[in-house]
Amino acid sequence: MNVLVINAGSSSLKYQLINVETQRVMAKGLCERVGTDEASHKHGIDDNETVISEPMADHDAAMSIVLKTLVEGDDAPLGSLSEINAVGHRVVQGGKYFDSSVIIDDDVIEKIDELAELAPLHNKAALMGIRACRHHIPGVPMVAVFDTSFYQTLAERTYMYPIPYELSQKYSIRKYGAHGTSHRYIAERAAAVLDEPLADLKLITCHLGNGCSVTAIDHGIAVDTSMGLTPLDGLMMGTRSGALDPAIVTFLMAHEGLAPAEMDDVLNKKSGLLGVSGISNDLRSIRSASEAGDARAILAYEMYAQSVKKHIGQYIAVMGGVDAIVLAGGVGENCDKMRRLIFAGLQPLGIVLDEARNRERGYEREISTDSSPVRIIIIPTDEEYMIARDTYDLVHEKHAVSFSTPR
Amino acid sequence: MNVLVINAGSSSLKYQLINVETQRVMAKGLCERVGTDEASHKHGIDDNETVISEPMADHDAAMSIVLKTLVEGDDAPLGSLSEINAVGHRVVQGGKYFDSSVIIDDDVIEKIDELAELAPLHNKAALMGIRACRHHIPGVPMVAVFDTSFYQTLAERTYMYPIPYELSQKYSIRKYGAHGTSHRYIAERAAAVLDEPLADLKLITCHLGNGCSVTAIDHGIAVDTSMGLTPLDGLMMGTRSGALDPAIVTFLMAHEGLAPAEMDDVLNKKSGLLGVSGISNDLRSIRSASEAGDARAILAYEMYAQSVKKHIGQYIAVMGGVDAIVLAGGVGENCDKMRRLIFAGLQPLGIVLDEARNRERGYEREISTDSSPVRIIIIPTDEEYMIARDTYDLVHEKHAVSFSTPR
Repeated sequence: MNVLVINAGSSSLKYQLINVETQRVMAKGLCERVGTDEASHKHGIDDNETVISEPMADHDAAMSIVLKTLVEGDDAPLGSLSEINAVGHRVVQGGKYFDSSVIIDDDVIEKIDELAELAPLHNKAALMGIRACRHHIPGVPMVAVFDTSFYQTLAERTYMYPIPYELSQKYSIRKYGAHGTSHRYIAERAAAVLDEPLADLKLITCHLGNGCSVTAIDHGIAVDTSMGLTPLDGLMMGTRSGALDPAIVTFLMAHEGLAPAEMDDVLNKKSGLLGVSGISNDLRSIRSASEAGDARAILAYEMYAQSVKKHIGQYIAVMGGVDAIVLAGGVGENCDKMRRLIFAGLQPLGIVLDEARNRERGYEREISTDSSPVRIIIIPTDEEYMIARDTYDLVHEKHAVSFSTPR
Repeated sequence: MNVLVINAGSSSLKYQLINVETQRVMAKGLCERVGTDEASHKHGIDDNETVISEPMADHDAAMSIVLKTLVEGDDAPLGSLSEINAVGHRVVQGGKYFDSSVIIDDDVIEKIDELAELAPLHNKAALMGIRACRHHIPGVPMVAVFDTSFYQTLAERTYMYPIPYELSQKYSIRKYGAHGTSHRYIAERAAAVLDEPLADLKLITCHLGNGCSVTAIDHGIAVDTSMGLTPLDGLMMGTRSGALDPAIVTFLMAHEGLAPAEMDDVLNKKSGLLGVSGISNDLRSIRSASEAGDARAILAYEMYAQSVKKHIGQYIAVMGGVDAIVLAGGVGENCDKMRRLIFAGLQPLGIVLDEARNRERGYEREISTDSSPVRIIIIPTDEEYMIARDTYDLVHEKHAVSFSTPR
């Protein structure tokens, strides 16, 4: 089954065409700056990438270009659009409605729209992607895979915030989490690497990219996660502050004369690694600067490690222990120096990094010592594959049911 | 040496007269609603309390009443005001200037005033108390004991926030901590109970009252604490939210049309246990309601415990272990049920509560099992004694120096 995976942002459209049975990525690409004069389409796998500037007035136009690319030209992976068996859409906010992925119908679309209040940019973008597919490849079954659904298992004591209860109720303010598809994927793969059932493990999964989140997964169930009402909560990130003394927010708004949206902008786009270092949101640049002795780069590096370390500690307390800590994302997968800082000093807790293994490059791998009671595992995350698999499962199941119970 | 300890709030003046050598509290009391028509003066020790409504236009008038009480009448602890050898003032915010208690001079007063920006209500109140003493008992040496000075040992990676560096610099935004005098006292007493030098211990001290804070003390040095720029940071408290997804702050301000000061009010006075339960900020009332089956009371109870548990986990990771966890404050000292919830499930981390000891009442005591690798200790806090002792030490030292090096 060929599944087209769509990840639509407010001005972008990312896609992969995946054959689920063979797990092969048949095509991938990204339309950027959709709706502007600088719109472009990057297409291709690994070293074989091309970038073409093309006018795209909106997501519908972008989708049209993507579909054309899939069937036209010598390298086209498909003979015709009818070979697309299903589409899987990434949707950021599933609110309290969705505790798993679902086949998209009118009711689902309405709910995604309703939830846009909680993730204004993201859910509206997902809807544009869904409508573009309905327009260009009508009749192809579609599935919505939510960033939040993995966290619908959180206990009330964990998802509620200690603010006035009436306000929580009025605006549905609670911890929704994010990155759920990534955490679900890396937890599954970590269990496979450990050769143990996921249902027997206490895992702490760390998605450390430009966005960062840590999740506690107790016997297969998500019991806590660091992202909250929005993806601004929790850890220090590339450009995001993470959780703060709320008095800092009101203090800065009062003293700098900022409106709520401007303050959001400071905390989402100008804080984190970028804000502290003044150099970049990219840890690679900060690492270079820190090795050249830049004091603010060193500080940013240390603060980021400390933030991850504290979240690991939190979740060890929440679960009363941990069997394995799993790392993913650009930083988690690639920065040996950051991993060393995160795990430095945790040996008395039974978490022992193997320095040599930590320095090696590779795919899925363990980097703890053989005698470390807690295992440390790196899993390159693959949200697109997870979306394709959910889509496959749901569409397959639906067909199976309709074959076996004809009406 | 008789030390008068003064803790001035914006409309209150709390005091104790302590003989430092004998550790005896000779008098104590509280002037409330200073500057209003309902001003009153509560005076007396333990069961021997009297409350008198008395007009007090300001802190100066309150101080005059307090001093009169100390020398007039049959029960007066002092023959004359000349028997007050020194005054110790609690000051909330010492900023980056003060890493320990200091003798008060004009320069110190100027700096406390300058720092009022960071703790507007509290530092101005402390200054009123200091000026009232200068007026009524001129020449008596005075000492300022800061809530924040204990935390000047925090590393930069710990006290800096991941917001734009320029804003941190411009407004001196950093983690200052609070409750430092309490944490310092209970850590010292815990070391005495354990019969080990403080310098040999990894301690997590939990001050759980209406305000709540947790501190990591590694070999006598404070290495992290939960309160931050202000006492709103960190844990869920009686009426305060603690740290939050900052997006909740801007979301509520935008949707409820709140100004920064109004938002501060919601998060400082209407959140925490009170906000969630809708019943009270007092855990005793919430406990009763939860035992009667009130769902929101149960939720508030569980959220509070979870918040403490997570902070304990954080600091175990920060220090790479812990020798003892110390509890103080109204909740920490008195609520066996909350302690049970906090420590539930932490046995695999070597933290084992003894159920019978936990239920007993008493003074300083251990409530972990004999075989628990991590000890759990209750220490009734005594900030006033600590202020009196700092005052004694500094005044004594100053005199000792001036005796030995006459000019």
